[in-house]
Amino acid sequence: MPPALHDVKALVFDVFGTLVDWHGGIAREARAALMPLGWQADWGRFADDWRAQYQPAMEEVRAGRIPFSKLDVLHRRNLDVVLRQRAWALPEDVRVSLNQAWHRLDAWPDVAPGLARLRQRFLLAPCSNGHIALMVALARRNGLVWDAITGAELARDYKPKASVYQAAASAFDLAPAQVLMVAAHSSDLAAAADAGLRTAFIVRPDEHGPGRGERQAACAVDLSADGLLDLAQQLGC
Amino acid sequence: MPPALHDVKALVFDVFGTLVDWHGGIAREARAALMPLGWQADWGRFADDWRAQYQPAMEEVRAGRIPFSKLDVLHRRNLDVVLRQRAWALPEDVRVSLNQAWHRLDAWPDVAPGLARLRQRFLLAPCSNGHIALMVALARRNGLVWDAITGAELARDYKPKASVYQAAASAFDLAPAQVLMVAAHSSDLAAAADAGLRTAFIVRPDEHGPGRGERQAACAVDLSADGLLDLAQQLGC
Repeated sequence: MPPALHDVKALVFDVFGTLVDWHGGIAREARAALMPLGWQADWGRFADDWRAQYQPAMEEVRAGRIPFSKLDVLHRRNLDVVLRQRAWALPEDVRVSLNQAWHRLDAWPDVAPGLARLRQRFLLAPCSNGHIALMVALARRNGLVWDAITGAELARDYKPKASVYQAAASAFDLAPAQVLMVAAHSSDLAAAADAGLRTAFIVRPDEHGPGRGERQAACAVDLSADGLLDLAQQLGC
Repeated sequence: MPPALHDVKALVFDVFGTLVDWHGGIAREARAALMPLGWQADWGRFADDWRAQYQPAMEEVRAGRIPFSKLDVLHRRNLDVVLRQRAWALPEDVRVSLNQAWHRLDAWPDVAPGLARLRQRFLLAPCSNGHIALMVALARRNGLVWDAITGAELARDYKPKASVYQAAASAFDLAPAQVLMVAAHSSDLAAAADAGLRTAFIVRPDEHGPGRGERQAACAVDLSADGLLDLAQQLGC
């Protein structure tokens, strides 16, 4: 284990992309919901378009232009934007059900066994922009066991605001340097490091579809791992 | 299952007294810390005295006279009060360690197996006045698995304020009537019912020492159970 990580007591995780395959799951769910209604699309592109609205929507909260809203609310607004762009008229019940697709995403295969190993030595929590109920649904679907749910809803703001990472450490009564932020995105890790946390980069080469993911960290990190089983091994679990 | 409970999706639990034996644990820990230093006491009485400061301390937060403070902070102030009452001069490191006694409490024997059965059918969370790190420590010590940690720290206020119970339901994206509050204290359940939750009374006849606990609910409740295994059976788990 790198010496900088000897004091780490808790690991907190980005979720969308790092732990669950949002791109494949949203493409699958959109196709299943909309093809029978007669709509045709590159469903991976549909997932990308929906996700492209993610940062601008959260920026409304981060900038204080709207009060904190759970991610389901932002996802729904973003879905309406994407449907308007395509001029697709969908009934309300289909929109509601499709918005819940984010609750039905699958974890990458290494995640459940990797977390089980890591939990033998560390406290574990998601530190996602997803809200508590969404984290609970993904955990139940994929057999993940968390010690607590940290992240945007606890902090009432969105990453990469420093307060979100610091609230995660505070929830465990730990200093930021005792917490390792684990993510497949350099921007997340750079912000976590600025907030005082330790950082681990996870390679998810297929996050945005086959061969479309970050292959190495674009910022300084404390370690890089090829999935959570490799992370567990590097951390001596 | 009582018809009023058919829509229940999540169970939220009081912790001190309902799930863990605070009286026996605090008496044990105080004795172990203070007897070797030469102090003598009825250690069960010492636990009662410390606990007697609990509601007045939280009332400072509930009334808005002090900002929200985690229970460790209130417990420490209360410990200092109790030591002052007895004119016991304890070194700072002993006070710090003794204050952590609340992290080292044991669950009643039915709790871990009862929660495991209940979790097959319901979402589970503590809804305690204890903060997140304290709930995490007690869960790890006693092998309890939670879906999330709700309660005072999430709501930034203390029970029996309605907002604490309602924040627990909101965290699961549920209406209050879809959540069953489980507690060994009538006052907790009466407040939960006023906040719109369903209620289950757990008999803990030895909460304050042998034979010193509430034997039946002093308010209307949706069901009463003799421990969590009985609760699981009554709920069809």
